[in-house]
Amino acid sequence: MSDLKAFAAKVFESQPFTRWMGAELISVGPDHADIGLSVCEHHRQQHGFVHGGVLSYLADNALTFAGGLALGGDALTSEFKINYLRPARGDRLVARARTIGKGKRQAVCQCEIMSEEDGGAKLCAIAQGTIISVAS
Amino acid sequence: MSDLKAFAAKVFESQPFTRWMGAELISVGPDHADIGLSVCEHHRQQHGFVHGGVLSYLADNALTFAGGLALGGDALTSEFKINYLRPARGDRLVARARTIGKGKRQAVCQCEIMSEEDGGAKLCAIAQGTIISVAS
Amino acid sequence: MSDLKAFAAKVFESQPFTRWMGAELISVGPDHADIGLSVCEHHRQQHGFVHGGVLSYLADNALTFAGGLALGGDALTSEFKINYLRPARGDRLVARARTIGKGKRQAVCQCEIMSEEDGGAKLCAIAQGTIISVAS
Amino acid sequence: MSDLKAFAAKVFESQPFTRWMGAELISVGPDHADIGLSVCEHHRQQHGFVHGGVLSYLADNALTFAGGLALGGDALTSEFKINYLRPARGDRLVARARTIGKGKRQAVCQCEIMSEEDGGAKLCAIAQGTIISVAS
Repeated sequence: MSDLKAFAAKVFESQPFTRWMGAELISVGPDHADIGLSVCEHHRQQHGFVHGGVLSYLADNALTFAGGLALGGDALTSEFKINYLRPARGDRLVARARTIGKGKRQAVCQCEIMSEEDGGAKLCAIAQGTIISVAS
Repeated sequence: MSDLKAFAAKVFESQPFTRWMGAELISVGPDHADIGLSVCEHHRQQHGFVHGGVLSYLADNALTFAGGLALGGDALTSEFKINYLRPARGDRLVARARTIGKGKRQAVCQCEIMSEEDGGAKLCAIAQGTIISVAS
Repeated sequence: MSDLKAFAAKVFESQPFTRWMGAELISVGPDHADIGLSVCEHHRQQHGFVHGGVLSYLADNALTFAGGLALGGDALTSEFKINYLRPARGDRLVARARTIGKGKRQAVCQCEIMSEEDGGAKLCAIAQGTIISVAS
Repeated sequence: MSDLKAFAAKVFESQPFTRWMGAELISVGPDHADIGLSVCEHHRQQHGFVHGGVLSYLADNALTFAGGLALGGDALTSEFKINYLRPARGDRLVARARTIGKGKRQAVCQCEIMSEEDGGAKLCAIAQGTIISVAS
């Protein structure tokens, strides 16, 4: 597993978009991945909330890493769906994805995105998607 | 409609994340919105393709504008789903969203994302989602 | 809540398709609904597994009831997504839906469908969707 | 293609749930499948509209056949999403699915469900999903 964690960290850091977004790989395990983001002004939309596209990026990436770890290597997101539950007003977001089921070539994962605000963490979006092994 | 177009352009420009991403509002109408993006190095993932999070941002935003125009004002994306069809290798992307059905408070929209590459435009993702009127 | 439970049971029983399918409302609460189905030969597909359409019916209906209970009255499913994890081989299925977040007019719910087989319960599908209050 | 059509018809007829529902395979081609259903009282919900579970069955099955035809053989639905646009009041439904993109092992398909009512056909639901080749 330590090899897999190192592999995940290396892939994460090698994504130009992830670095540009400022996301951090907080934690990974055999079937989960947590990604954090310190919200900047440029992540927001016209009402001052975090833009939905930032949340969908976090969901997409957390799902990919959770599924890739479960599948044991390089993977990509085949599809996902996201429901926005409330505006994200916080200064920090955490996307927590975990694998719910897997076969040889694909994993199905869920993700929740928390916004840290008002001294607590509020659930602002949930996502569900399919991750495919690239090796397959 | 010209008022609605001006309103859409104003909202689009007032999104910090959209400006930071470098997206452009190419075209809008009573029930559609086309958004373009000139791909930069910082939009890519570890294999050099456009990151899925960039495609999901484009889908989210194009769906919101298509639905908002159909609903006649400020709107937000309640949920959407995206299927990635092929890696986006091009230097320019265009997301074309249109409203398929609408009621008083919500619109259901579809979006296709084209990647301009090899002298043509290839479909690299399709999305479907629900847009809610903020005024409601 | 006992009024709400009685209301849910009454609505459930008044659905001709639900009676025809043979589904049972096992349990309801302020934000959840469990629906069971004893699998008959006519619920299966060509390989002897339960047909995906039976699973999607169970997801659709469990989501509607979970969301309707959370919203406090008559409701309908606006949209949902389902991922099939493994073939359902069992003689009995249970769909368990619960509300993850809600506003005045809509609730976002998740559902898992278990297949009772080999002396245990195996997760065979997960779903996520939006329920809208009819009263709104 | 005629072999593929015959194969599709044979699979369709060998689904007990499909026969029990009363669905008909109207038309198939290299990348599409149309399925019809004459609505009976037992297909309805408490308000007299067609039950959402009937629409989701039609979407699931039409998507599977459209994708299976594109992939050239036996296939199953990995996942799909459906948005309900309006209540289906008609006496006959037609689900039209077509393949939007495909690789070796999977196809991404869209489906629209029309309700024949008031002398015309009204769009009452749209769906999008992933079909996987069983042979792979």
